[in-house]
Amino acid sequence: MGEIIEPRTLRGFRDSLPQQELLKEEIQGNLARVFRRAGFVPIDTPALEYAEILLGKGGGETDKQVYRFLDHGQRDVALRFDLTVPFARFMAAHVQELYLPFKRYHMAKVWRGENTQRGRYREFIQIDFDIVGVDSPSADFEILAVMHEAIRALGVQHFHIHLSHRELFNQFLGSMGLQSAYLEVLRAIDKLGKLGREKVDAMLAKLAGAERAAAILSFVEAGGSSQATLDKLAAAVPRDSSALRRLTEIQACVVEAGLGDVVRLDPSITRGLDYYTGVVYETFLDDLPGIGSVCSGGRYNDLASLYTKEQLPGVGSSIGLDRLLSALEELGVLPAAQAAPDVLVLCLDDTLIAAYHRLATELRSRGLAAEVYPSARKLSVQLKYAERRGIPLALFHGEAEAASGLCNLRDLRTRETCDGLTVQAAAETAARLLRP
Amino acid sequence: MGEIIEPRTLRGFRDSLPQQELLKEEIQGNLARVFRRAGFVPIDTPALEYAEILLGKGGGETDKQVYRFLDHGQRDVALRFDLTVPFARFMAAHVQELYLPFKRYHMAKVWRGENTQRGRYREFIQIDFDIVGVDSPSADFEILAVMHEAIRALGVQHFHIHLSHRELFNQFLGSMGLQSAYLEVLRAIDKLGKLGREKVDAMLAKLAGAERAAAILSFVEAGGSSQATLDKLAAAVPRDSSALRRLTEIQACVVEAGLGDVVRLDPSITRGLDYYTGVVYETFLDDLPGIGSVCSGGRYNDLASLYTKEQLPGVGSSIGLDRLLSALEELGVLPAAQAAPDVLVLCLDDTLIAAYHRLATELRSRGLAAEVYPSARKLSVQLKYAERRGIPLALFHGEAEAASGLCNLRDLRTRETCDGLTVQAAAETAARLLRP
Repeated sequence: MGEIIEPRTLRGFRDSLPQQELLKEEIQGNLARVFRRAGFVPIDTPALEYAEILLGKGGGETDKQVYRFLDHGQRDVALRFDLTVPFARFMAAHVQELYLPFKRYHMAKVWRGENTQRGRYREFIQIDFDIVGVDSPSADFEILAVMHEAIRALGVQHFHIHLSHRELFNQFLGSMGLQSAYLEVLRAIDKLGKLGREKVDAMLAKLAGAERAAAILSFVEAGGSSQATLDKLAAAVPRDSSALRRLTEIQACVVEAGLGDVVRLDPSITRGLDYYTGVVYETFLDDLPGIGSVCSGGRYNDLASLYTKEQLPGVGSSIGLDRLLSALEELGVLPAAQAAPDVLVLCLDDTLIAAYHRLATELRSRGLAAEVYPSARKLSVQLKYAERRGIPLALFHGEAEAASGLCNLRDLRTRETCDGLTVQAAAETAARLLRP
Repeated sequence: MGEIIEPRTLRGFRDSLPQQELLKEEIQGNLARVFRRAGFVPIDTPALEYAEILLGKGGGETDKQVYRFLDHGQRDVALRFDLTVPFARFMAAHVQELYLPFKRYHMAKVWRGENTQRGRYREFIQIDFDIVGVDSPSADFEILAVMHEAIRALGVQHFHIHLSHRELFNQFLGSMGLQSAYLEVLRAIDKLGKLGREKVDAMLAKLAGAERAAAILSFVEAGGSSQATLDKLAAAVPRDSSALRRLTEIQACVVEAGLGDVVRLDPSITRGLDYYTGVVYETFLDDLPGIGSVCSGGRYNDLASLYTKEQLPGVGSSIGLDRLLSALEELGVLPAAQAAPDVLVLCLDDTLIAAYHRLATELRSRGLAAEVYPSARKLSVQLKYAERRGIPLALFHGEAEAASGLCNLRDLRTRETCDGLTVQAAAETAARLLRP
């Protein structure tokens, strides 16, 4: 044996311990049910792809955030850094064998070499859902409705989904003769949350003058009810604005679905700088506004234009599971994941192990989760193990009980014991003790 | 827009289409239930680790099968190529905050740059389950029992788990004075399935002479009932063989559990050349013996000796999901994954989309999976979409029905229609049509 190697992980990478992993399993199960109930289907794509696919041709300057390398065959490859680019490639490759509209969800790991000093992880789970092949208010609303269902399925009660339209803001700037400053203004607005109103006002004044800065801020801070915001927007953009019509149609669905209190029209939502071309969404937790949006997305004109000439409009949204988990933990609304089985079958005598496994099997066949302690260590060690794992019940079956075929059941929480039970009686008693 | 990039994947890497992915979700869900019912808990580890961790110090000569590269920080890193090495590192890192015995399962992707010409994939899902921190016949049997439950949970009826003990064969060779040829003999035996008896006989004769070759083949071909094999083995190894005692104890559990017909003592099972030190397992499908073992494992003395001085004996087994899926497909026993929702709410009028979403929500709240067609395209297009996806029922709600608030439900399989239904009546009718 050589020297011991320190069992460390890379910075920004983490092990997932059972409690955490059970929670992820449960949350992903709940979300899958939400998606499937609405007709979405799951897909997966490779973790590793040609760098050209993920970064685009001429994406030569190595993005520091992308894990990129030459494989054994000297192929230029990279680990996926999101689920959108692989989905675009996927649609281009499979659109003929699929159908449109195509509604998919994808829950999988992505990798980014982010700066870990800001508490960022380099490996995290992304959950995306999209409707591709249609550009309609109905699809825009459906993503909104699924976002709402998904966040609720995680046990969060108090949150708001903010809704806007990229084109709307564009038109408003146009009406002020500011088309050419579009990106700069958007960039400034995007910083409202971080820098505050005063600093952004100063930035805008520098770009467009004090008067137009005030008008811009008034536009994005529309506030009030969604209907009031719509009215205000209507006054600021051309009468035939298709963006305004789209928002109005979505808002009608929102009201009819009883989501009027959850969904807010909010022109300050801009979702970064390119990519999105229609509606945009962000989701904020009322009790933790500071962590930013936990579920965001929007509409794009053309998903897969890098890989196919077929135009694929779409709309979708995305949850960063790890960030959301931290938030849920902070809120104390994490669903309780059950890590422990119901019953520990104690090993009191090594000659009886066949009987212990039979007892466990019979308990399982009656719907209980049962585990056999795997060797006849001291009773105190076995009970300590049960305690450490949080196993509520212990089944005793020693030499004396072996003769009679019966067993004793102890509730380790109350220290109550029921003696002389058949397996069936033990299973019934256990069920009663666990779910009184 | 530049040139179109061909939407290809790397050789040995595949997209997973919805039908396939639903199946994987379902299978992994079933397996998780089996594991958890027996007290196993899930963990996860990073896909990317220090190469030193995965390959060991001085594992300098680059293994061609390992995806290994320098990251942005010039760290020597690699993608995991199995789930055992990361688990060893995991145990060394976390044993203090966990408990022993520790029973974990891990279902995750691994990557190996295998030769794709033999139909191998370079990215595949591995499913491992282990009991660490105890060396006992009870733990050995438990892995066997969970293997049995897991394979059955996949819908496979006809299979056999082959069981042996590495030490036993060692002792037998010792009794013939062949200790030094151990590895060579093992290597020859390992080829019985591939090369056939005659060629292996010749190889063994060259190593040990014709007489001992015959004795070796007779030993590994023990055949007959497990009890007969035990008796035969007892005659060939030292009387105080702990390996024989271990197998005898496991066999008693096997019989008591009613698994006597499924589990076979088979001394020809050797599981490669190093690593395992105790029992070894392999699982063969009766109807597809040619694909080799679909679930294999064994006992090891010391899991994490590279990373800690704490000795961690363990026993475990592993399923290669992708290979098993191909096998299940060939056997025609794949569980039917339901890719389609129950009801398609047709979009007959773009001014009614809010009503369509409300109808879908109400159907969902009554336990049905319901999807809204997202725009008012021609009815034939919408019905073709339903057919393509295999959606059995369609809900009609047009201008006429909007006035009355009622809707019509059509069974697309039989073309029967029920008209003038309230949503509640539609939901009840749908439930009846789907699950008559």
